[in-house]
Amino acid sequence: MKLVTYLYEGKEAAGVLSPDGACVYPAKGLGFECADMNGFIDLLAVRGLASLKEAVASGCDGEISLNQVTLLAPIPRPKQDMICLGINYMAHAEESARYKKEAFGGERPYAVYFSKRVGEAVRPGGHIDGHFDLVERLDYEAELAVVIGKDASHVEEADAAEYVLGYTIINDVSARQVQTRHKQWYFGKSLDGFTPMGPCIVTADEFEFPPRLSIQSKVNGELRQNSNTELLIFGIPHIIRELSQGITLKAGTIIATGTPAGVGMGFEPPRFLRSGDQVECIIEGIGSLKNTVK
Amino acid sequence: MKLVTYLYEGKEAAGVLSPDGACVYPAKGLGFECADMNGFIDLLAVRGLASLKEAVASGCDGEISLNQVTLLAPIPRPKQDMICLGINYMAHAEESARYKKEAFGGERPYAVYFSKRVGEAVRPGGHIDGHFDLVERLDYEAELAVVIGKDASHVEEADAAEYVLGYTIINDVSARQVQTRHKQWYFGKSLDGFTPMGPCIVTADEFEFPPRLSIQSKVNGELRQNSNTELLIFGIPHIIRELSQGITLKAGTIIATGTPAGVGMGFEPPRFLRSGDQVECIIEGIGSLKNTVK
Repeated sequence: MKLVTYLYEGKEAAGVLSPDGACVYPAKGLGFECADMNGFIDLLAVRGLASLKEAVASGCDGEISLNQVTLLAPIPRPKQDMICLGINYMAHAEESARYKKEAFGGERPYAVYFSKRVGEAVRPGGHIDGHFDLVERLDYEAELAVVIGKDASHVEEADAAEYVLGYTIINDVSARQVQTRHKQWYFGKSLDGFTPMGPCIVTADEFEFPPRLSIQSKVNGELRQNSNTELLIFGIPHIIRELSQGITLKAGTIIATGTPAGVGMGFEPPRFLRSGDQVECIIEGIGSLKNTVK
Repeated sequence: MKLVTYLYEGKEAAGVLSPDGACVYPAKGLGFECADMNGFIDLLAVRGLASLKEAVASGCDGEISLNQVTLLAPIPRPKQDMICLGINYMAHAEESARYKKEAFGGERPYAVYFSKRVGEAVRPGGHIDGHFDLVERLDYEAELAVVIGKDASHVEEADAAEYVLGYTIINDVSARQVQTRHKQWYFGKSLDGFTPMGPCIVTADEFEFPPRLSIQSKVNGELRQNSNTELLIFGIPHIIRELSQGITLKAGTIIATGTPAGVGMGFEPPRFLRSGDQVECIIEGIGSLKNTVK
């Protein structure tokens, strides 16, 4: 199933795409009364995906044609900051080391976790705010994001799949100079308008676990990143086990699993984003997330 | 005024200490109907502190004796991750460099920002979870935390004071080894039970701006940290200006301003926390925050 947040007649609501993809079934019409996607996720944590699947199969009161709605980011206002993995594909680790003129150590014994504030995620088709008064080196990062479906604490790798509600696409927009000069990456990752997300959350039952999906990005139509999520250095079971050893990952937590090689700073000379550039992030089975830099 | 969150007859609520400090005035009894402190802060953003002050001055329906309640962390479940400043007192910058065996550069041209996940903040008197299965080098950090009172975007230093609701005390408990080995500090700072907060939020009108307050910590009664918030390298007006240039700081955002020298890793040999240790963080005019390591 594809879970979406949409704008219809000026109001935001959560819902599910109809099996043929032509309509949105409002969550409310499926018997899931909720204010937004965070509320929908909380209900699903209690009632389970299977009950939603049944409801969708028996159709919906008040379905809306897809061309009458505007899709928003599936989780427009995450409850907590997004957790992100740094340098989690080997070829990206190499390009990052080259850019920073650091020797590349090769082995990566520990995952790099940081967080990204998301006041309001950018919708598919919405604008990335370049903050060009503040930012000189604007970059893109296509990533597979995991959405946690129920509170996860001390989860073993073998059980990790049970805690995943689904997957979406994130563009982890980054201001390289800001990211680097403040030592910790937080500020350079967290600017308003730096988190395009969408177009939907594909529920976990649609993929094998962990998912092996083609992941790409294009800038103005030119292929820049082209990899597969099976190449994650630290895979989803590892991440969920490691983080949940110490942190209770609440339902609705978003974990962006890192970006493959081919970001702007990876080119020589680097190819950073400019106003008007269009960035498209594509993940097999989830869709395409297209945004223009403003 | 001192804003508090308390437990009374098994229920959590937000309120204000009575002027004599003997009672809690429930926010509801003052005409501020809210589910919790996050809701209280949202109401205050609209109605202003002055209206609360008037309400408190004319007394309250249903005041509760302080000895009948348990004080909780004033913001038990922050809406977003807490934003933290790293190495923001010079003497602490020196001790950190010594511990990490890095040359100490002296000058600090840019603030270090990171974030700390707070699923549930630890109440005054509550336990710090040592996570000793995972953590070898548990440390304490007494910090002055700023609570933002209304959404702040592109704020000048001269206007920063208007955006501050008040101040509280944070113990930024840190797992040094975890913090270091994962490169970015996020994971080692964000474990469950790592954020004691309280005992109250003192509203901004009670201090000059920026506040110059004695800040101390004690472990098992022994003075460890002893400084003054006037020694912040990057002061509160700088922090609010810099962050709000790029990030809308929403009402309820908590910013921990950094810790002075005297943390466990600053001693030679280091003096990390053990199970049973009692850590007390004290800030002039706010109070004392005492917690025991479990």
